[in-house]
Amino acid sequence: MGMSTKPPSGMRDFLPNELAKRRYVISTIQKIYEKYGFVPIETPSIENLSTLMGKYGDEGDQLLFRILHRRDKLARALESETITEKDLGDLGLRYDLTVPLARVVANNTDLPKFFKRYQIQPVWRADRPGKGRFREFLQCDVDITGTKSLVAEAEVCSAVSEVLLTLGFKNFSIHVNHRQLLKALIKAAGISLDNEATTLVAVDKLDKIGMDGVKKELVERGIEEEQMRKLIELIQRPENSDELTELERLKSALAGSEEANLAIDELKKLCKLLDESPVAGRYSIDATLARGLGYYTGPIFEIRSSDFGGSLGGGGRYDGLIGMFKGSEIPAVGFSIGFERLVLILEEKGLFGSISSGPDVMLCHFSDVEEASVIKAATSMRIGGVKVEIFPETPKIGKQISYAESVGAKYVAILGANEVETQSVSLKNLETGEQQTVKYADVASIVLK
Amino acid sequence: MGMSTKPPSGMRDFLPNELAKRRYVISTIQKIYEKYGFVPIETPSIENLSTLMGKYGDEGDQLLFRILHRRDKLARALESETITEKDLGDLGLRYDLTVPLARVVANNTDLPKFFKRYQIQPVWRADRPGKGRFREFLQCDVDITGTKSLVAEAEVCSAVSEVLLTLGFKNFSIHVNHRQLLKALIKAAGISLDNEATTLVAVDKLDKIGMDGVKKELVERGIEEEQMRKLIELIQRPENSDELTELERLKSALAGSEEANLAIDELKKLCKLLDESPVAGRYSIDATLARGLGYYTGPIFEIRSSDFGGSLGGGGRYDGLIGMFKGSEIPAVGFSIGFERLVLILEEKGLFGSISSGPDVMLCHFSDVEEASVIKAATSMRIGGVKVEIFPETPKIGKQISYAESVGAKYVAILGANEVETQSVSLKNLETGEQQTVKYADVASIVLK
Repeated sequence: MGMSTKPPSGMRDFLPNELAKRRYVISTIQKIYEKYGFVPIETPSIENLSTLMGKYGDEGDQLLFRILHRRDKLARALESETITEKDLGDLGLRYDLTVPLARVVANNTDLPKFFKRYQIQPVWRADRPGKGRFREFLQCDVDITGTKSLVAEAEVCSAVSEVLLTLGFKNFSIHVNHRQLLKALIKAAGISLDNEATTLVAVDKLDKIGMDGVKKELVERGIEEEQMRKLIELIQRPENSDELTELERLKSALAGSEEANLAIDELKKLCKLLDESPVAGRYSIDATLARGLGYYTGPIFEIRSSDFGGSLGGGGRYDGLIGMFKGSEIPAVGFSIGFERLVLILEEKGLFGSISSGPDVMLCHFSDVEEASVIKAATSMRIGGVKVEIFPETPKIGKQISYAESVGAKYVAILGANEVETQSVSLKNLETGEQQTVKYADVASIVLK
Repeated sequence: MGMSTKPPSGMRDFLPNELAKRRYVISTIQKIYEKYGFVPIETPSIENLSTLMGKYGDEGDQLLFRILHRRDKLARALESETITEKDLGDLGLRYDLTVPLARVVANNTDLPKFFKRYQIQPVWRADRPGKGRFREFLQCDVDITGTKSLVAEAEVCSAVSEVLLTLGFKNFSIHVNHRQLLKALIKAAGISLDNEATTLVAVDKLDKIGMDGVKKELVERGIEEEQMRKLIELIQRPENSDELTELERLKSALAGSEEANLAIDELKKLCKLLDESPVAGRYSIDATLARGLGYYTGPIFEIRSSDFGGSLGGGGRYDGLIGMFKGSEIPAVGFSIGFERLVLILEEKGLFGSISSGPDVMLCHFSDVEEASVIKAATSMRIGGVKVEIFPETPKIGKQISYAESVGAKYVAILGANEVETQSVSLKNLETGEQQTVKYADVASIVLK
């Protein structure tokens, strides 16, 4: 009929087997987040554009999916002489889970003072689709609002690390930096703070375009050659230095900078906390880490894995964002897991094991059995908790059994006229081939044992 | 700062306590759907407009949330002389879960022949918001594709009934009708089949506007007074008649209509199946039931409850919809639960019981305890599976304990310098007041028992 049956570009249908894997990862994340005392919230997929705009940088604003006005509002917009994007809608799809959290915290004054929330929901970005990059994808965030204590940083890093360890990841490291340290480094390189944002954007691309790429990009963005060289020298970590040695190197390089001192002291303290947590031995101080988003104000994090180029997730402290909604400042720190990449790697490494979505029992029946009797048998087995699928038609029994095997059923229960009389089925284990006659009510005790 | 912190009109933030209730309902539905052999799929929130348009009637088309084109495509659209809605986008938000299922079945030729899928995801409609009516709301659908067997009808009705019974609903009834029967009734009333759709729309409003309202609406929609009276007479069920008697009444009223005979025979057979299922005693033949959507072709259903005016969900057979995508016809039948109304009624009737979202243990500590030691204690307790929240700052212990009570923690674990030395906490049960000193590693055995 010419109608496309594919999902839109960059979006996906999840069929039962793939969804079972995604749900396994989600439930693992939920359980661990809850063990760390996080509680769930959900927010609408659609937000006011005024909530979203100006939080993600210009690039982010351009990636927003906007909702078109309807009826009168649209008609009025289309009547005007010059129409711009702004006139055509005031709603957009959620771009991340952090800005909605900030709005929720500002909107609900009766939340706990230290609000530890997790949120697992899709977000939408009109990015160019590619391998592991989608236009609708799941984010899994933990955030703690209401405290400047570094315990909060340690907690979000710990929760995320335990998720990765539980899922079977071994080779990962949480890279740690600090926005105030970065600022001091930029200043120390002689770069004007007017160029701070553009410098961060360039440095943020390090793992994508390499050090030579960053150098080139910095110059293209108007940073002078000499300052560029100085910056690169400052942020590059010497090989074979440990975390404290690296922090000492940065401290002496930035001697005299009050903000650098404060940031380095925070990082030192954070290292001590991480050393007592599941993150111990799995983090590294990395002055080249920039993180793209504009709203970070303190420590920043990113998970890198030798199993996968690029980031598996990241986060940081953003003490100003909630204040943009609330007026008064509420400090916050968060971490977001790159769910889609996680699933991709688990799949590639064969770490999912066997996750089946078939029924316990496929109920097959001969054509001389009344369908009402079939329903009765199924109802009885289900009372015992058995997952029963009824084969809805009556081709030859062999065909029904082949079908049962093809959908991954564990047993077939065959119903003939004799069985109906004794309220029983001929139950066959499809793995072992073992077969026996069992009363409807006793099927559960065999199948679910 | 003047920025609104509310979610957009008709949309909602779900905070932890409310979300816990919603998750309880969702997991109940999932478990029961799976017991009936249904497997889950998920589809993208965004669909091509060509997929959505023309499936829900004109009213439905107008309620679609459309996505605005971006960049070049938008610029080109805005350049043209006369701009219409069509030029501004080709994507829209999912309006229901049935059309996406039809697209998925048409797109995936390797699905099981009898595909029993459930899907629990939000849908979006730009409807006027009201009590229990939202612009983003959850749907919980079961559908069986690939068979015309009435076993499929019985199965979807059974699964939905068991959900309601399990959640504690007692007073509900599944109203059952048949689109071909309705068609025969409309013909028998002397109404031209050109007016079938408009007649169904009017009759569908019966539970909202009452019989007098329907009569008025039918006349307003151009049905002649006499035909209207005849139709009403035909569809109204006499009091105190049982299901088979009602079907016999309709059969004699429509004597000679081949399509009516077929439809009534199907309904008789369906009654026999339902009598052996959890729906037994909980359904009623109702010739006034119309269901708004255009795509139904056979039996149709709707759940009514004396606990709540209006519908708790509905469904029916739609043998033509998948063919609109695939070319060749694939029969299908489905049922959708009105999740939001369910939650509303469960709340109003106090059927949720106590669902808590607090941590097992709030870990409090004196200011002379190093934070690294606090992290160490929490890490140790969590290894045992305990949900631990760390109080992140150090006001007086009494204040920390009050806070623990306010967020619903079950225990507080207090850490002082002495406790750190012996790797233990002073553990207090907040319900009983009982207090004891316990090694970190032993907290799990007490808290989780």
